[in-house]
Amino acid sequence: MSELRKDPIVDRWVIIAAERGQRPSDFKPAPQPTSPVGCPLCEGNEDKTPPEVFAIRDGTPPNTPGWRVRVVPNKFPALAIEGEVMRSGIGLFDHMNGVGAHEVIIEAPDHNADIADVPLEQIVDILTAFEQRTCDLRRDKRFRHIMIFRNYGAAAGASLTHPHSQLIALPIVPKIVRDKLQSARNHYRQKERCIFCDLIEQELALPDRLIYQNDQFIILSPYAARFPFSVTIYPLQHSYDFTLMSDEQCLLLADALHFILTKYKTVLGDPAYNMMVQTSPNILPRPGHADYWSSIKYDYHWHIEIMPRLTKVAGFEWGTGFYINPVSPEDAAEYLRNDNG
Amino acid sequence: MSELRKDPIVDRWVIIAAERGQRPSDFKPAPQPTSPVGCPLCEGNEDKTPPEVFAIRDGTPPNTPGWRVRVVPNKFPALAIEGEVMRSGIGLFDHMNGVGAHEVIIEAPDHNADIADVPLEQIVDILTAFEQRTCDLRRDKRFRHIMIFRNYGAAAGASLTHPHSQLIALPIVPKIVRDKLQSARNHYRQKERCIFCDLIEQELALPDRLIYQNDQFIILSPYAARFPFSVTIYPLQHSYDFTLMSDEQCLLLADALHFILTKYKTVLGDPAYNMMVQTSPNILPRPGHADYWSSIKYDYHWHIEIMPRLTKVAGFEWGTGFYINPVSPEDAAEYLRNDNG
Repeated sequence: MSELRKDPIVDRWVIIAAERGQRPSDFKPAPQPTSPVGCPLCEGNEDKTPPEVFAIRDGTPPNTPGWRVRVVPNKFPALAIEGEVMRSGIGLFDHMNGVGAHEVIIEAPDHNADIADVPLEQIVDILTAFEQRTCDLRRDKRFRHIMIFRNYGAAAGASLTHPHSQLIALPIVPKIVRDKLQSARNHYRQKERCIFCDLIEQELALPDRLIYQNDQFIILSPYAARFPFSVTIYPLQHSYDFTLMSDEQCLLLADALHFILTKYKTVLGDPAYNMMVQTSPNILPRPGHADYWSSIKYDYHWHIEIMPRLTKVAGFEWGTGFYINPVSPEDAAEYLRNDNG
Repeated sequence: MSELRKDPIVDRWVIIAAERGQRPSDFKPAPQPTSPVGCPLCEGNEDKTPPEVFAIRDGTPPNTPGWRVRVVPNKFPALAIEGEVMRSGIGLFDHMNGVGAHEVIIEAPDHNADIADVPLEQIVDILTAFEQRTCDLRRDKRFRHIMIFRNYGAAAGASLTHPHSQLIALPIVPKIVRDKLQSARNHYRQKERCIFCDLIEQELALPDRLIYQNDQFIILSPYAARFPFSVTIYPLQHSYDFTLMSDEQCLLLADALHFILTKYKTVLGDPAYNMMVQTSPNILPRPGHADYWSSIKYDYHWHIEIMPRLTKVAGFEWGTGFYINPVSPEDAAEYLRNDNG
């Protein structure tokens, strides 16, 4: 079973998910199926995955063909679904057992139906699966945060080419989410306004970094982007939780995702990328902490981050937390806004 | 000129080092010279670099052959050496001009004399260059922190194959260094002991993660390692600043580096890696801050981190700050300690 360990000097948890007997030579990348033959996520190969926990189907039985989106537990999970969360200390070190959920959202029955190339209705189905799984896992009181992410391309860490996203439910709120929440909270306490709403307003006033806008969402090139051509998608209306989207918002988020992922293909030459859904941590009222959790609704504003993997992260970045971005966010916005493809 | 920008929500500075007219298609990796032909860092090609700022030579004139280690400004610096540090704000955003130093430490005249393969005396020369350049740049009151790092192999971000390290002098203390310092300071205030010294003592008592030890240094597999087979080298004696090493310590650090980098070649199959020298920020007594800076001497303990790049950083890591390490630090220590090569 995997375990969670905390660095005693940097406040950072790590999942140690050691597979038994793994040797140094096991780190050569495994060959991937590039066609439906042998792909465990393709329609017709439902018996090659663990049994599904969710699917959008037109009346067909579970774990058979006939689905549009299908969610299954990860066959090699980083965290295990069984067991209670147990914390312990060993001298300077903090330790937890590796309890959590790790699921795969299979985005299409067709091996080659990438999210950038499918009709908006299929993207809505994918987003619906994201919402449904998040809501379901939030009922489990052991989990404090649910992270949905998409790795596209080998350079972004994808180990299967079939279109898919992943979900990990964690027994603690991760540092990046806590940092964002703290910063948003400080701003709200001082100004009684959401920092993300303020940011959106400032960016709309002088739209050098505005890439796309529809009635419900905007896509921005972040002012302090770490990676060339990375973007953030924000809902225009304040909302702390992406599962609260209306049907109209869901359709317009599908539209925004389709816009930017198509742009990546046409303008950037189909780069590998990582996509992360940054929603609020699970609200967990506990005695003495009710204020802390309920104020999240005002402080936090959910968003989606997408980062093409065009540059390598090197020693300077690892050693300092500083990033060097060779493309100005304003130039990146101009490329992604216009038809340079 | 490049600029420094701070993310308004996550407390993170980024260097925007945009080259004029860079297009999306410029991100394909450039072909590298794999032999001395055309390599700007090789002996005999001194005119292909900016003039040297330091060299270890046996009486030969600057910018000619006859050196053992040579330091030159980076031809494409991330930060510019001229100008005063100017801070400004634009609404929610914080901005500084990109003042700093960016140098290349050419570690050997021979294109193929990698640090893992050379005599200890040459590693001592390299470490001497690190120390000399750090001491020299610290005299510049604009710089708050000096980071020395080594990118080895394309997957670690190296753009030249000739053995070299880099140095960046920054006008602010970066977040990772501030986080480590804060954590060390909290520990010291509570216990009047250095947290790193405590960590070393704990690890020596039950040496599951001990990889190597000589009279002055130990190499540990970190308890909460983010990456498989990453290591940290600590001086056994408390010291906040690596430039204060004695000659004996310098030789024994060379010995420790030689041990682990040779192990990476023999046991791990010569992986790409990043190496970072984590020394204290530049001590800068300012009115009202004297205590803050002088207590660094007690709080901080310098160290070197080395991280093989065997796994990909993916959406989960970028979105949460959590890392998944598929090799337990104890197994990694065992592989690197024993002769599995």
